[in-house]
This record gives sequence, C-alpha cells and structure tokens, in this order.
Amino acid sequence: MASQTGAVTTAHEHSSAQANGITENHQVDASASDPAPAPIGKKRHSKYRHVAAYHAQLRHSSLSRDAEVTPSFLGFRNLMVLVLVAMNLRLIIENFMKYGVLICIKCHDYRKQDIVLGSILFALVPCHLFLAYAIELSAAGAAKQTVGQQKKSAEEKERDQQRFRSTWRYTALLHTLNATICLALTSFVVYFYIHHPGIGTLCQLHAIIVWLKNCSYAFTNRDLRLAFLNPSADPGLPEIYATCPYPRNVTLKNLAYFWMAPTLVYQPVYPRTASIRWSFVAKRLAEFVGLAVFIWLLSAQYAAPVLRNSIDKIAVMDIASILERVMKLSTISLIIWLAGFFALFQALLNALAEVMQFGDREFYTDWWNSSSLGVYWRSWNRPVYLFMKRHVYSPLVGRGWSPLAASGMVFSLSAILHEMLVGIPTHNFIGVAFFGMMFQLPLIALTAPLEKMRGPQGKTIGNCIFWVSFCLVGQPLGALLYFFAWQAKYGSVSRMRV
Amino acid sequence: MASQTGAVTTAHEHSSAQANGITENHQVDASASDPAPAPIGKKRHSKYRHVAAYHAQLRHSSLSRDAEVTPSFLGFRNLMVLVLVAMNLRLIIENFMKYGVLICIKCHDYRKQDIVLGSILFALVPCHLFLAYAIELSAAGAAKQTVGQQKKSAEEKERDQQRFRSTWRYTALLHTLNATICLALTSFVVYFYIHHPGIGTLCQLHAIIVWLKNCSYAFTNRDLRLAFLNPSADPGLPEIYATCPYPRNVTLKNLAYFWMAPTLVYQPVYPRTASIRWSFVAKRLAEFVGLAVFIWLLSAQYAAPVLRNSIDKIAVMDIASILERVMKLSTISLIIWLAGFFALFQALLNALAEVMQFGDREFYTDWWNSSSLGVYWRSWNRPVYLFMKRHVYSPLVGRGWSPLAASGMVFSLSAILHEMLVGIPTHNFIGVAFFGMMFQLPLIALTAPLEKMRGPQGKTIGNCIFWVSFCLVGQPLGALLYFFAWQAKYGSVSRMRV
Repeated sequence: MASQTGAVTTAHEHSSAQANGITENHQVDASASDPAPAPIGKKRHSKYRHVAAYHAQLRHSSLSRDAEVTPSFLGFRNLMVLVLVAMNLRLIIENFMKYGVLICIKCHDYRKQDIVLGSILFALVPCHLFLAYAIELSAAGAAKQTVGQQKKSAEEKERDQQRFRSTWRYTALLHTLNATICLALTSFVVYFYIHHPGIGTLCQLHAIIVWLKNCSYAFTNRDLRLAFLNPSADPGLPEIYATCPYPRNVTLKNLAYFWMAPTLVYQPVYPRTASIRWSFVAKRLAEFVGLAVFIWLLSAQYAAPVLRNSIDKIAVMDIASILERVMKLSTISLIIWLAGFFALFQALLNALAEVMQFGDREFYTDWWNSSSLGVYWRSWNRPVYLFMKRHVYSPLVGRGWSPLAASGMVFSLSAILHEMLVGIPTHNFIGVAFFGMMFQLPLIALTAPLEKMRGPQGKTIGNCIFWVSFCLVGQPLGALLYFFAWQAKYGSVSRMRV
Repeated sequence: MASQTGAVTTAHEHSSAQANGITENHQVDASASDPAPAPIGKKRHSKYRHVAAYHAQLRHSSLSRDAEVTPSFLGFRNLMVLVLVAMNLRLIIENFMKYGVLICIKCHDYRKQDIVLGSILFALVPCHLFLAYAIELSAAGAAKQTVGQQKKSAEEKERDQQRFRSTWRYTALLHTLNATICLALTSFVVYFYIHHPGIGTLCQLHAIIVWLKNCSYAFTNRDLRLAFLNPSADPGLPEIYATCPYPRNVTLKNLAYFWMAPTLVYQPVYPRTASIRWSFVAKRLAEFVGLAVFIWLLSAQYAAPVLRNSIDKIAVMDIASILERVMKLSTISLIIWLAGFFALFQALLNALAEVMQFGDREFYTDWWNSSSLGVYWRSWNRPVYLFMKRHVYSPLVGRGWSPLAASGMVFSLSAILHEMLVGIPTHNFIGVAFFGMMFQLPLIALTAPLEKMRGPQGKTIGNCIFWVSFCLVGQPLGALLYFFAWQAKYGSVSRMRV
C-alpha cells in the first residue's frame, strides 16, 4: 500500500497537464534564474508522471498459505445471514404463489368436550396438591411428637427410628398413590377423550410438571424430617433454609408457592427478589404472545403444507422425497423450535418468576454453543435437569451406581415422560419420542471426547453434530412421523393447524 | 453452578441407599463408641440427602438485558452454515427430481468458425505488441540522438523540447492507432462473426487486457523518456528502476514479459522471485481446472433451468415471479461468482505469477469485508484498480480535477469496458453492464459515511449493502437481462450451457 499512498499524494500536490510537462520542465529550469513567484512555485510541483512503481516489493495473496496474516472473514458471516434471508424470502414468495393464504381461525375445531374436560383436569390438580400437603402434615405431626419427648437411651432411639421408617413407608405409599393417580387419570382422559392435540398437550404437560413437583416435595420433606429427628448426625442443611426450619415449611402457602414457582426442585426457601417489576412482566408476556402467534402462522402457512405433501411420499417410502421433505421441514421446525424455546424459557418463565419474585432465573445456559450432546442436555432445560440430578442421578450414584448407569436411568425416565407428552395428546404411542431420547445416550458418548478436545475444532464439530442430530434431522423427522401416524389414524389435516 | 458441583461431589462420595439412611444414622451414632473399621467409616459418608439448595442465589437468564455477561453466539454461526448446506442440498435433490441430469458435453455447438476466428484474433495480438515495440524503439532512438549531442544553450534546449513534443504527438498517435485498431478489430469480429459467447468473451477479454497494457506501456515510456532527457529537472525515478535505465528497457523481451505478467501497470523492472516452485504452479492450476468444471456443472444443472423458467415471467413482467427468480438465481450466481473469483484471482493469477517469477502477488485484498462499495472497488481487482489509479485517476487529479470527477471518469471508462466485455460476446448492447457500473458511484457515495463510522455497526451495514447490491441483486439481475436479450435474439437455450 505504501507505494500507492505515495502515488496519491504525488498526484494531489501536482496540478497541471501531463502533455505539456516538458514545457514546464523548461520553465522550471528557467525559474531557477528569476525570482520564483507563487504561480511558478506552484508549477514547480505541477507535473504528474506515469512512472510510480506500484509493484515495489514481494507480496503474497492474502488467501495463499504463505501469506503472513490470514485475513478476517467477518464479511462472509454477514453474507451467510443475507443469503439465509434471501433464500427464505424466496420460499415465502413461492409458498404464497402456490397456496395463497392458508391461515384461517375458523378452521379450528375445538370440541366443547375438549375444553370442558381440559378445565376439569386443570381444576383437579390443586386437590392432589392439597392431599400431598395433608400427607406431609400428618408425617410432620408424628415427627414433632417423637422429638417432643426427649429420651436418650439407645432402645428408645431405636423405637423412634422404627416409627420413622414405618411412617416414611406409609407416607411414601400415599404420595405415590396420590401423584400417580393424578398423572394416570390425566393421561387416560387426554388419550381417550380429548381429541385436540393442543389442549391435550397443555393438560398432559401440566400433569407431568405437577407429578415431578410432587416427587420433589415428598423426597425433600423426608430428608428434612430426617435432619429434624437427628440434628446430631446431620451433616448440616443449607444456610438458606435456616429462615424456615423443618416443620414450619409444611404449610399450604409454602406448597402453593412451589406449585407456581418456575422450578421442579422443592426448597422450603428460595432466593427471592425484593419487588415485582410489572413493566418487565408486561414485556415478557408481550414477547410470549407475539412469538406464539408467529409460531402459529409459521406452522399454518409453511409447516402444514410441507407435512401434507409428505404423506404420500412416506406412504410409498420414496427415500429421496422423504429426505427432501425432511430438509424442507427442518428449516421451519428449527425456527419454530428456536421461537418456542425463547417464548417458554426466556419470556414465559421469566414473567412467571418475576410475578413470583423467584430469584434464580437461570432456566437455561448458552446451550447453542454446546460442544457435545451432554452439555446440551445439561444446559437447555435447567428445571428438568436440576430435578433429574437432585432426585435421580445423584441418589443413584450415591447408591454406588456408575455415572453411566445413572444417566441411563435419567434418560430412560425422561424418554418415558417425553413419549407421554407427545404420544398421548396425539393418541399415538409410536415410541419415536422415547427412542429419540434413548438415542441421546450413544450421541452423548460419541461427542463427549470432542467436548474435551483442546482446540476449537473439536468443539465446532461437536456443536455441528448437536445441531444436525437434534434440529436438522431429529425434530423434523419426529414431527413427520407423528403427523403421519395422526393422518393414518384420523386422515384429517385441518386439525393439525395448531 | 457452585451449588451444583457441590451437590455432585456430595453425591459421589456417598455410596449407599437413601431408604435406609436412618438405620445408618443410628449405626453412625453407634460407631462413635466402637473403633470404626473401614466399612463403617465408609458408611459414615454413605447417605444421600435430597436437600441440596440448587437455587441458592439470585441469577439472571443469560439472554436477559440485566444479565451481567452476554453469552457467545458462536454456535449460531455453525447453525447458519449447516442450514445453508441443508437448504442447498434440498434444492439439489429437488432439482434432480425435476430435471434429472442436464449436463451433457455433446450439447455444445462450438462452430468451427468460432474456433478458427478466435485463434486468429489471439495470434494477431503479438503483432500489435511488436508494433508498439517498434514505435517505442524509434522514439527511444530519437531521444538518444538528442542526448547524444551535448549543447547547453537555451535555444538549443528549446529545439530539443520542440522535437520531443512533436515526437511524442507522433508516438502517441501511432500507439493510439495501433492499440485501438487491435481492440476495434477484435470487437468487430467477436460481435459479428463469433457466435459462441464463451469463445467471444475470451477473445474480447484478451484484447481489452492488451489494450490496457498498451496504454500503460506508452504512458510509462513517455515519462521515462522525459526523465531521460532532463535528468536535472527530474524528481527522481523509483530506485527499483535503476537496474534497467530508460532506453535499455525498450526491448522485445521486456515487452513480452509485461504482456505475460499478471499486471496492467508497466514497469521496466518488477520485484521478482528467486525461483519457480512448479509444485505451487501445479496446485494452482489444479484448483483452477477443478473450479472451472464446478462452475460449468453449476451453470448447466442449476443456473440454466432457472434462467429458462424465468423467460416467460420476464416477458409478461410478473414482478413477484421475477423477484422469486432473481432470489433463486442469486444463490447460484453468488457461488459461481465466488468460485470464479477464486479461480481467476487466486488460482490462475498466482500460477501465472509463479511461472513469470512475478513477485507482487497482491491481486486482491480482503474485499469480502468491504464496509463500503468504494473499498470493494479498490480491493477486489487490484490490477485494474492500479491501472486506473496510475493512468487515469492520478493524472486527472494532477490536472486539477476534483477526486469525485476523476472517479467519475474512472468508472465511466470502466463501465464502457464492462459493456464491451459483456455486450459484445452476447451480441447485445443493452447497457446493463454500463449502467450497473455507473450505478456504483451513487452507491459509493451512499456507503462512504458508513465506512468512516467508528463502531462496527456502520461497517456491518455497509458490508451488507455491498453484498445485497452487488451479489444478491446486481449480478443475478444482470445475468437474467442479458440471458433474456440473448433469448429474444436467438431463442435457443442450449447454447447458454457454458
């Protein structure tokens, strides 16, 4: 560059014709004798020469191996974004030219029955929670009695332990009955009587969440009671619980808070925020509604036709076409997935947490950078991850299970819950969700070494495996299969417009 | 995270059932009295508690505004790449399902006449260069004579200048005739007698390059001669020229080297490499051939159908469809453009430079990061840029033109050359290339401020404007229009398969 900038300045300080450069030279020579006035002084510098050496040193092309510095490629990132926008804009235009506007609100058939049953199921949940509370209350009562009479002899202690153990068996049985009935009832009703998959999913999701909360509530209170009975042998409870020691946490208010709080892990006390910022709540809810509408439009206008057109392809098992369909669906399902994630985990849970003054908002960490499937499952859905860790993984490892076996158990449970969540509302137990989850174990094992690699390359490969396996293949394929099963069973498409 | 890792370690050091935790407690209490053997000592740590406080402190969601650190989004870059690959793979599958294999080598109709005329045109070029050499030789002879007789009186000098000026007018006239005849002849033959646009483009490109080299040769030698005649008034020539002072550079060998060298700027001496790395040459040529085939396949299989399908859309001016076509074409033309750039400027020019031992390989700088159109035009095609700067822009600024006016002139000349390069081989002077180039001036003015902005945002916007205007709209639109004009004139598509 040096030579050029040099040339530029030369060019700028000169200001006269090249053709008569020679005459000037003459005048320049003359001007040596006579006193040089401004114009001539100016003329002195007034010829441009076509002789600048633009090629003055050895230089490499910046893309060559032997180039000293590799250039930045930031521009290509912008290009990628633009190409993605352009390609999808084109698909939008294509879609409209093919189908026109497919969005219609009347098309939905919310059967009255679905609404009624759904509401009843929602209403039942608090009753079950009340039962759980009653169970804990009695157990707490028994514990208080025990502690009430201070006796220190070994056989007395022994009797206490006996009583406690029998109480726990009894309590555990009741809790199990209570929670399981709640979940089983919901599943039964949704599977057999609620046709609309949207409403069904809502009920099922709520039931599963409450079931998990119920388990956490029972386990945690059991060990709090244990600590209450044997303060001596106790390794010490977290300081944060000190403000609400054991029996005092067994209140309806406390349980109701846990029911509403955006967590699946019961604690007598949670970190709380000082106040509720209603503007924050409003913004988060606005985001949620906006994204919900966006997702609905996307699935109605873009996903639905793709799904519909793929039915016959799947029926005849035309691999090339199925592949093409999966790929076409992948972009849409990816966008829906990302929007859905943001709507639920960022917008809705934050709004809920703000209202509940729930302090710990870490509902997810930066899962999109996951360098392995393991990292992904630990980071994308923290509430479930924390539940599984506190009440399944750690206890099993505590019992001497190998971490691998324990994770196996975690994913099996998770797989069952996923299948319940997808299979029941769509009235199809085809096991895709189940095996999809189980398939995560080999993927985790496969990508674990990449995560540990030193350089960024391994992490990038791991990240790509995650995106491909999860978003570009797993999800759209799953959607296709459940939709196909639905079609095989009901043969109507309009109902999928949810 | 602290609380969790804590929980993990707890989980790991414990190794027994939670159900009978209480019995252990008892044993633990007992173990205080009797000497504790290993198993019991182990048991001391052997109960897991479901009480870990996973929600121990206030935390924000990482995507929230109030989060302390914004997370990295590197994962999304990988996702973008993958989505681009997936979307284009899908288009490839779609394309094959629609059209099957369109590539066929026999389909080409290289008319014998085209080949013959093309070869003749190529053969003519050296003759014109020989003429240019002859002209310079005579001029050099005259100069030598002048310097030969040493006389220092003013009127003698005056006569020298007179002679020189007349010589230059004469030389300039001959050079102009020689160069212009060469270019005009080629253009004429290509436009009227060479049907195949590929062969035509090659001939035309070669002719234009030689024309530019001719100009540079004439201008540079003129000023070298000038310096030779007036060493006293001379501001000094670049040191690099010292090894070959003026009259000695006027040799056939020197000119032939300039003809072959990958530059449009004549210098008596260039920085040279010590040796030729034939392996390097081989690799670059392999790259070039590979990319050429790639481009051919791409245009035959993907660009051709899109172009064909867009004919009727353009004919009826269906805006939505034209837009859709342009967008569909944009990705393909972008890939072709990038591949073509790499094939020519990285692979071919580097191979040529290596063979010629030409040292300055800076044929481009990192134009893909251009934050304005101005930067782009200065960086993507250095050979032409350097020519325009040395022989058009700088001289005009030297004559007192404003930089803006000078650039205007540069782009007008460049626009004419572009139209010649595209319009003549396609036998359609529709002026799209010309106005496309002229349109760069307002774009440069528009994006110049963005380039100067402090933050990265302005640069990003500028970069996006560059990509959109140039690659996503400009190029495919241009291609469409020239193809449409071609169809209107010849109505055959197969010939476009080049």
